[in-house]
Amino acid sequence: MQWQMKQGLMDFLKRKGVVYRPVKDVDLGSYSTEFYLQANVKAPRMTGLLVKIFTYLLEFPILGTLLLFILKGNNLIHRLITNAEFQEPPLFVPLHDFEDIKERKVKCLDSSLQPPEKVHLALDCLPVSSQETLDGTNSSFCRWTIMDYAKAYRLGDITPSLVAERFIAAIDESTKASFQMGFFIHYSVDDILRQAAESTHRYRRGEPISVLDGVPVAIKDEIDCLPYPTTGGTTWLHKERPCNDDACCVKRLRLCGAILVGKTNMHELGSGTSGINPHYGPARNPYDTNKIAGGSSSGSASLVSAGLCPVALGVDGGGSVRMPAALCGVVGLKPTFARIPHDGVLPLNWTVGMVGILAGTVEDALIVYAAISGEIPSEQIFSVLTNINLPRLSLTKSISDIKLAKYGKWFDDCSNDVRICCSKTLYQLQDHYNWKIIDVTIPEIEAMRLAHYMTIGSESSTALDSFKEKNFAELGWDVRVAQSIYGSFSGMEYLKAQKMRNRQLQFHKKIFAEADVIVSPTTGVTAYPIQDDALQTGELDYVNGAALVRYSIAGNFLGLPAVTVPVGFDRLGLPIGLQFIGRPWSEATLIHLAFAVQVMCISEYRKPKVYYDLLRKKIDSDAM
Amino acid sequence: MQWQMKQGLMDFLKRKGVVYRPVKDVDLGSYSTEFYLQANVKAPRMTGLLVKIFTYLLEFPILGTLLLFILKGNNLIHRLITNAEFQEPPLFVPLHDFEDIKERKVKCLDSSLQPPEKVHLALDCLPVSSQETLDGTNSSFCRWTIMDYAKAYRLGDITPSLVAERFIAAIDESTKASFQMGFFIHYSVDDILRQAAESTHRYRRGEPISVLDGVPVAIKDEIDCLPYPTTGGTTWLHKERPCNDDACCVKRLRLCGAILVGKTNMHELGSGTSGINPHYGPARNPYDTNKIAGGSSSGSASLVSAGLCPVALGVDGGGSVRMPAALCGVVGLKPTFARIPHDGVLPLNWTVGMVGILAGTVEDALIVYAAISGEIPSEQIFSVLTNINLPRLSLTKSISDIKLAKYGKWFDDCSNDVRICCSKTLYQLQDHYNWKIIDVTIPEIEAMRLAHYMTIGSESSTALDSFKEKNFAELGWDVRVAQSIYGSFSGMEYLKAQKMRNRQLQFHKKIFAEADVIVSPTTGVTAYPIQDDALQTGELDYVNGAALVRYSIAGNFLGLPAVTVPVGFDRLGLPIGLQFIGRPWSEATLIHLAFAVQVMCISEYRKPKVYYDLLRKKIDSDAM
Repeated sequence: MQWQMKQGLMDFLKRKGVVYRPVKDVDLGSYSTEFYLQANVKAPRMTGLLVKIFTYLLEFPILGTLLLFILKGNNLIHRLITNAEFQEPPLFVPLHDFEDIKERKVKCLDSSLQPPEKVHLALDCLPVSSQETLDGTNSSFCRWTIMDYAKAYRLGDITPSLVAERFIAAIDESTKASFQMGFFIHYSVDDILRQAAESTHRYRRGEPISVLDGVPVAIKDEIDCLPYPTTGGTTWLHKERPCNDDACCVKRLRLCGAILVGKTNMHELGSGTSGINPHYGPARNPYDTNKIAGGSSSGSASLVSAGLCPVALGVDGGGSVRMPAALCGVVGLKPTFARIPHDGVLPLNWTVGMVGILAGTVEDALIVYAAISGEIPSEQIFSVLTNINLPRLSLTKSISDIKLAKYGKWFDDCSNDVRICCSKTLYQLQDHYNWKIIDVTIPEIEAMRLAHYMTIGSESSTALDSFKEKNFAELGWDVRVAQSIYGSFSGMEYLKAQKMRNRQLQFHKKIFAEADVIVSPTTGVTAYPIQDDALQTGELDYVNGAALVRYSIAGNFLGLPAVTVPVGFDRLGLPIGLQFIGRPWSEATLIHLAFAVQVMCISEYRKPKVYYDLLRKKIDSDAM
Repeated sequence: MQWQMKQGLMDFLKRKGVVYRPVKDVDLGSYSTEFYLQANVKAPRMTGLLVKIFTYLLEFPILGTLLLFILKGNNLIHRLITNAEFQEPPLFVPLHDFEDIKERKVKCLDSSLQPPEKVHLALDCLPVSSQETLDGTNSSFCRWTIMDYAKAYRLGDITPSLVAERFIAAIDESTKASFQMGFFIHYSVDDILRQAAESTHRYRRGEPISVLDGVPVAIKDEIDCLPYPTTGGTTWLHKERPCNDDACCVKRLRLCGAILVGKTNMHELGSGTSGINPHYGPARNPYDTNKIAGGSSSGSASLVSAGLCPVALGVDGGGSVRMPAALCGVVGLKPTFARIPHDGVLPLNWTVGMVGILAGTVEDALIVYAAISGEIPSEQIFSVLTNINLPRLSLTKSISDIKLAKYGKWFDDCSNDVRICCSKTLYQLQDHYNWKIIDVTIPEIEAMRLAHYMTIGSESSTALDSFKEKNFAELGWDVRVAQSIYGSFSGMEYLKAQKMRNRQLQFHKKIFAEADVIVSPTTGVTAYPIQDDALQTGELDYVNGAALVRYSIAGNFLGLPAVTVPVGFDRLGLPIGLQFIGRPWSEATLIHLAFAVQVMCISEYRKPKVYYDLLRKKIDSDAM
């Protein structure tokens, strides 16, 4: 009878969960009756004192638990995940087998090659006329590429040392009062100049290591890179976890001769999408410095957008590379889960995060992708299985015969400007390249977003658990709130989220049986204003947050590769990105498609307000 | 400041967690200073009214949570897992790569073969003189084997139909007042006779399908087998989840012509080790019907022990095949995780359970293993990777050059009788076969037990979640308590348990670099008495429970194959088992070693008190 008493209380408290139908009974066609559930975020925007009070309440023992229970219920977590019934077993790690690739005309790289050799081979995959528009005219604006740097260095037009000096001067200027660009958390003038001098020396001897030699590359402060600490956007994490070595991906870039110019700003602990960091200032949007850069790889995006690096590294656990790339008008590539070794990256989660690449152009993303991708070192046991095949990589010449899956209701669930711009681009792609659009239905997208949130939350909370007592009081307020929610999920909730992962993988596999990629906008909104009261406390804006991550989740939760390319601007002149999500290991196809989009759209590219032209003119004499 | 307040409260409440050292710094040698922590179970044995009151308290909202917190703290869960610091990423699924096998002289079976063909090939692997002792004399007692059945049927000494009749009569007798053997949950006289008649017909035509044709095989009631419901030991689960088809392993046995004789008794929902089921009676120990059979595959073990089937299937999620096999004096084989398809088995967990085989002799375990093992059907996505290699299987002739890893402190942490018997056997093995013993240290065994408990608990709780409100009041009291604890773990606790899984896998891999197998007793105690007050309520006996599972965990948590063989008896005449734990996919080696032990020990085998000799004499005329 006690059981019945408890049951009555539970019925009162909790909402009945969804009973999910077997995957095979769900219609994924265009006329499917599956309901498209819009993100139903019920949480007011909070900053300043309000967010402080809210944080206190959440952290208060019993009251906090109750508050979280109500909050999660209001946001459909109970209905769609916690109390839902699934037939699928949990899928814990989106580590894909290699056998299902169907890429055509791709070049395979032997992963035992050294990074400079890989870069060299990648050059053969570069399209010939990379900076020309479709009709052969030059674009009105295009950022300098890695090949532009390499050519200028080789011809002696400029030296890495001079580029480094200009870079340092630009950083110095841009962080001053007028712009207040929060690009970096740490960067060392001495270290940059030292690397540049070495590179200059190599060019002088006629022995550059690769086309990346002397090219400035920035690293998100979530990735280990000597001689810097790795703060993860906090004020303390580097003290608890010293950085003693380069991350694997950084090592590979260094081996190619790249100049590692410092550690870029980020949303604290990656747990936010605005890129507003209360400790290091916001990484502002170069197209409008009063707008957010997006996050969490905010500094990397704004730095590439402002022309200061052709490429920067980020980490993408829930769109954290693609969202800021789209908001700042650059290319963002999130490779297949486990494609790039994760060692030396802060372990903020284990099953959704991947190093990603932010680049001014698709070609540059390709080159750096070739340099850093490759097999997982054996220490990283996510799954015991380690026989991942090696990356294959190329651009095909032919770009016809491509099938794009589009889910109309989801595609259109964004601001008017984003919708109009992305739809227009899609029609143009059909026109120009004869690509075919297949209308599909992707069910339970909002449930997937919640399941991903519960997953990354539980993992982040676990990863940071040993720092909680001592260090969490130093976190920004919005991140303290996030961590309170992250720590509140039960083992059962975590496991049910993994059941949703299995379900969604099956849906996506079915869609990829018909189409080469899924196409969508990259974000539901463009960059929104940085409000003054958010600067000190951070802000809670779950409504905008949900709109930003709307299209990102499959890339992380299912480990699928995805790329964003800039395709236009909203009425305020803020960039808009178009996203392709590919089959596992199909980066070559994605890069290929992204390049086709870039060629088509490049004539519309505009210069950001904050922009530095590091290769701006020939120098008269090589002073060294 | 609020944070500090909370911190003070937390410091008061919780115990500081262990900070685990990096795996590479832990010494696994025999002189290691690693501390062997004995299971520190702090929970009194409870039955009757006490367990009811305890259940009520645990299920009471806030009070129950507090009680569980204290209980978990007392049992070192907070210290060893929840608040512990790990450097390892979580390892979610113990799905092993196939490349690390080093088995010699094994025969590989093509998994695309049909089960009868596999059985046929397995016969070539059988040792020649399987029922002879080392010195060539016949054993004092040995159960009939599959080959004995096949030979008797082929020679016309007896028919499957007559065996079926004797079987039915024996079951009828044994369940009566004097013995009260609770072998079965469901069995159908008509279905048994029908299968037997068909088999008899095949033999009469001279067309038996395989050596398994006409051989009685019983199935644990956790595995689907038509025409029976699958209760999982409950009174209601089959109503919620109807059984519509044979499980894959049952299908394979049916294809070989085996007579499926019914669904064996089990500890309810597999969540206990005693095998005392309040709904279907206890499956008593054939060596002493006042003692437990062990669990959870209790009915399968006692049935094989009593001579009623040469083989039965069980499921082993935490020793549930090996423990009852050892307690009932039969062979128990738990194959490598994912070796046998799991579809059609109740999904009570997803990362630790495996179908296992209980058999009177090692040879019979081998034959049935060949019949049912093979690749995972594609529907079962535990990990996306599916390119598991296929089983290889054989017995080698040579049995020298074997290295056994022994962790002395752990090996000796059992009752005197078990320790003396297993140690003696080990010395004999060195003597007879020249096997070498390597002294090692396996650290953190008790922490692994707790981590496994948290894992199977969280998964079981999730798997059964949709039945909680409606059906849990019908569960036995001990299982209600178990489910209360199971449902109490947080997402972080689940994830930390997976970190311990990663850690332990690394320890075990290091040990397997030096040794072929790990040797230990199978259980810490022999069968203990069934007390009257336990029959209605079930009993809570976590002290005996911990002693029973002491040696089982690595097999489940790390997915390693393991086998138990009877090696002797305690002073009360209750059986004792010796266990080998092998490298992933090394079943062939395990079977080989187990056979060597059987040959050495077979002269000491004794007949159980409850024993039926189904092939007892020739029949004078074939009546059919």
